[in-house]
Amino acid sequence: MNTIASKLSALAALPTNLFEKDFLLTWQYPDRTIRAVLLAAEILEDMAAAGISTRVFNTGLAVSIFRDKSTRTRYAFRSGCNLLGLMTEELDESTSQIAHGETVRETAAMISFLTEVIGIRDDMFLGEGHKYMTQVSDALCESSQQGVLLQRPAVVNLQCDLDHPTQSMADLRHLIATYGGLNALKGKKLAMTWAYSPSYGKPLSVPQGIVALMTRFGMNVVLAHPEGYDLVEEPQQAARRFAAESGGSFSVARSMEEAFQDADIVYPKSWAPARVMHERTRILRAGETAKLADLERDALANNARFKNWECTDDLMKLTKNAQALYMHCLPADVTNVSCKAGEVSASVFERYRLQTYREAGHKPFIIAAIILATRFADPAAVLGQCVARNEPRRKG
Amino acid sequence: MNTIASKLSALAALPTNLFEKDFLLTWQYPDRTIRAVLLAAEILEDMAAAGISTRVFNTGLAVSIFRDKSTRTRYAFRSGCNLLGLMTEELDESTSQIAHGETVRETAAMISFLTEVIGIRDDMFLGEGHKYMTQVSDALCESSQQGVLLQRPAVVNLQCDLDHPTQSMADLRHLIATYGGLNALKGKKLAMTWAYSPSYGKPLSVPQGIVALMTRFGMNVVLAHPEGYDLVEEPQQAARRFAAESGGSFSVARSMEEAFQDADIVYPKSWAPARVMHERTRILRAGETAKLADLERDALANNARFKNWECTDDLMKLTKNAQALYMHCLPADVTNVSCKAGEVSASVFERYRLQTYREAGHKPFIIAAIILATRFADPAAVLGQCVARNEPRRKG
Amino acid sequence: MNTIASKLSALAALPTNLFEKDFLLTWQYPDRTIRAVLLAAEILEDMAAAGISTRVFNTGLAVSIFRDKSTRTRYAFRSGCNLLGLMTEELDESTSQIAHGETVRETAAMISFLTEVIGIRDDMFLGEGHKYMTQVSDALCESSQQGVLLQRPAVVNLQCDLDHPTQSMADLRHLIATYGGLNALKGKKLAMTWAYSPSYGKPLSVPQGIVALMTRFGMNVVLAHPEGYDLVEEPQQAARRFAAESGGSFSVARSMEEAFQDADIVYPKSWAPARVMHERTRILRAGETAKLADLERDALANNARFKNWECTDDLMKLTKNAQALYMHCLPADVTNVSCKAGEVSASVFERYRLQTYREAGHKPFIIAAIILATRFADPAAVLGQCVARNEPRRKG
Repeated sequence: MNTIASKLSALAALPTNLFEKDFLLTWQYPDRTIRAVLLAAEILEDMAAAGISTRVFNTGLAVSIFRDKSTRTRYAFRSGCNLLGLMTEELDESTSQIAHGETVRETAAMISFLTEVIGIRDDMFLGEGHKYMTQVSDALCESSQQGVLLQRPAVVNLQCDLDHPTQSMADLRHLIATYGGLNALKGKKLAMTWAYSPSYGKPLSVPQGIVALMTRFGMNVVLAHPEGYDLVEEPQQAARRFAAESGGSFSVARSMEEAFQDADIVYPKSWAPARVMHERTRILRAGETAKLADLERDALANNARFKNWECTDDLMKLTKNAQALYMHCLPADVTNVSCKAGEVSASVFERYRLQTYREAGHKPFIIAAIILATRFADPAAVLGQCVARNEPRRKG
Repeated sequence: MNTIASKLSALAALPTNLFEKDFLLTWQYPDRTIRAVLLAAEILEDMAAAGISTRVFNTGLAVSIFRDKSTRTRYAFRSGCNLLGLMTEELDESTSQIAHGETVRETAAMISFLTEVIGIRDDMFLGEGHKYMTQVSDALCESSQQGVLLQRPAVVNLQCDLDHPTQSMADLRHLIATYGGLNALKGKKLAMTWAYSPSYGKPLSVPQGIVALMTRFGMNVVLAHPEGYDLVEEPQQAARRFAAESGGSFSVARSMEEAFQDADIVYPKSWAPARVMHERTRILRAGETAKLADLERDALANNARFKNWECTDDLMKLTKNAQALYMHCLPADVTNVSCKAGEVSASVFERYRLQTYREAGHKPFIIAAIILATRFADPAAVLGQCVARNEPRRKG
Repeated sequence: MNTIASKLSALAALPTNLFEKDFLLTWQYPDRTIRAVLLAAEILEDMAAAGISTRVFNTGLAVSIFRDKSTRTRYAFRSGCNLLGLMTEELDESTSQIAHGETVRETAAMISFLTEVIGIRDDMFLGEGHKYMTQVSDALCESSQQGVLLQRPAVVNLQCDLDHPTQSMADLRHLIATYGGLNALKGKKLAMTWAYSPSYGKPLSVPQGIVALMTRFGMNVVLAHPEGYDLVEEPQQAARRFAAESGGSFSVARSMEEAFQDADIVYPKSWAPARVMHERTRILRAGETAKLADLERDALANNARFKNWECTDDLMKLTKNAQALYMHCLPADVTNVSCKAGEVSASVFERYRLQTYREAGHKPFIIAAIILATRFADPAAVLGQCVARNEPRRKG
């Protein structure tokens, strides 16, 4: 195993290109940026395990805006920020004077005096979440250029309608830790498949983020879903491009069985049809809330046609040596545990449960690595100084 | 008065047995653990008064889960954590993806990456609160042993259905400060009595915690309550055992008058009959919320039969030299102040009001002491290093 | 431009008189206190821009109580506290055990163990907000004198019914930055005028704070509002007194046109008639919530008689060289942007939008300066030590 010192040398050789930038969609950044964030996250994990303080901010604020429920990402953000010395504050839009339209840019400025990073989750409205983040980003650019802000905070996407980059990066970090490096992933088959859920309206950002990221490093990524559950085009285009560049592949299968065949890794997870999510956005924007119940009933009825899309022991037997790695962003809909019929059987989930926890455990470090890369020109040097200072996380 | 240095020597001689453990019910720990926490709290108070920083964490998260309202304990937790350098975050279950059953262990893991301590209040459901804390505790053990967590956070009971240990320890610390040491408490009579309140459903954990803790150090503890307001058995068993071991006593009286007779200390406080609390838990679990109003009406009617259980000046005259120390965990139901008829007359409460504030003031230090003892193998050494560094809380 | 060192020398010569005090109403403090806070805020801005850490608290809590919505002031408080090293916690009265009357002093004590500052917004009830803050202040004095608290937190007014001192001080700081010093403000004409808004019930504290503060430094302050929209007497008395002392003036005009004539600075902003705010307080206290709708309807109808009180390009042409500085505390009701007809035309607002952001940007530093002055006997020395240590805000 590599030492922290040798990893720091490797990191120093990777320009991140993120300094004073945002982190919104993984496919906007070159491979070296992705590699640098992954490596910085690994070093942060090593340093935390060694008890070395990575407090690089004496003071500083990290603001989060959650427009949807969250436990995992909220705590990953809080932990990651705390690991670097930032105090987190959550913007509660219900107790603020926040309106629409014009005031996005005003609010963006008002929460940004002395702020280092703004983390945003806005994933429930297809066509809206990423747009909102770019509005915040543009507003911060203006305020920064016009001397309103001493420093422009970085915007970090904590899940939008297009991508869930801190999730997909944590997932990729999990694969690196499991298989022993990015190079070991070349040629591995990953099946990103839809799975049945008794709830409707789950965002598309996880599967979109997975296909767009995992195709970059030579993996053979197979996407499978029932008819009508297509992903949006942009991340699929990115997936095709990355597959071509990396020597991997990106293909679409019509069944879980086909996708699971000889797969090294499976990622069965529910999402809503883009059509339903668009309609939902339209209904809510038009204030036609009475129509929501109809939409939900129809969507659930359509989901129910595909109850056989469940990750069972039988399906797992189709995978490479019947022992593919099962992945999930959590929480999973586990049959007979959290629901009557869901994404995965209790037996499969229980076998991989602790591994899904470990998968989630990389997220705080991914977030901290992104913050490091957006706030410091030379993250390797900054971490090297922490190693040199050798201050303990806990004194004693 | 002892110096900080001599107290640190005394602390060094007391093994706490809490390192990498939880703090759930006081009666689970030996006397030396209780003594060590009390002494560490006292040293932390001395150091705070002397303006010496006790920031022993460079970074680190403390998560609280409040399943019931709280001002005192919430701020005691925040202050105590801050005193040591931990950032606090409160888990708001309404904005999280938290469900029931299976997911307690998942949530426990998800909020624990890089977390040093989890404080939980879950006091409204008899038979449930302590059980929930042990589920969280077990989940953290599993996650820790299975390599999910770099570090296993300590679970600290901020009030459950059985005990309210940070309260009872702060109360005991108050007695030590008032009488000049643990040894001075030997032979003192403490009356823990029920008192009338116009509200129903108050937890039993305070009186239970008091009788189980105060019997350990040679006090004569008398419990008094109307028929039907019995405490649960476990803490009373502990009280009998501790009284026998310590040379004190634990007895039950049938009236406030009898309990107050020659008492050195009185603790008159309302609580609900265990029967009502069990029924309340059953009703809520069964979703029969319509029955809650009936339960409340009957419980209040029963309470009203005992309006004469009020701590008045006349009753206080029965105590030792008519000047027993009055204690309360706050907020008290004060007759003609916060309600028409309550636990204590305005005249008695006002005479002791500032002392009850001082009583509450020990809680942040008790909580900080518990955290120290659960996170550091040698709290005396850690505090000694703080004294040696002599960094100020406020620089300037 | 002056260096940080020369500003520190100037600050050292100004006794603040705020050590271990509160900051409630600007007119309670002598000019030198106001000058010291403004200068300390300027130095803090300079140090932040230079990347020098101003972390003067190793640990410490700052508690905020918001009884009304807030984005700007909430984040200014959080940023200002964080800049000095304090952890902020917001008291959520809905999840606390807070009642009325007697318990204000109890709550004040309970949230104050180890707390350095308590920031309060209570601006919606004329005749109540300032009173509440003085109750908290008195309670803290008692608890401190009686040995309940190791340290008495400073109470900082984050907007009450009478004053909004962190706003008015940030506004004055903005004028200093715009015109190059306090002395440059002598003889400038500032028009504080009512403006139309389609909402009712806006607090009076901003215009009151502005007239009471801006008259102190030789400006000619003109107040204008429709009949019936008078401010309360106390801050107007202060304005008359300060104008007399400073060689400025305070007068009342009957129209926006008159007030804008040759003005250097205009501050058009809506507020409610004192009569409406008093009636609102009375209705809510009496629990007559059904009458609120009538009050609102009548108040809005009355507002609507004065729709021509809008800051337009034509009105701006009346000002000095047609280029007065436009100020607003934000959020503004901008015609055709946030409402159909409001306080200011879109064209005027857009021209000054970034300047209003800069105006707001001074608030975190004003708040930090107030905290410094209330917690340290010699703020200049404390900041001088930060300069000498030269620790970076971001290490790296």
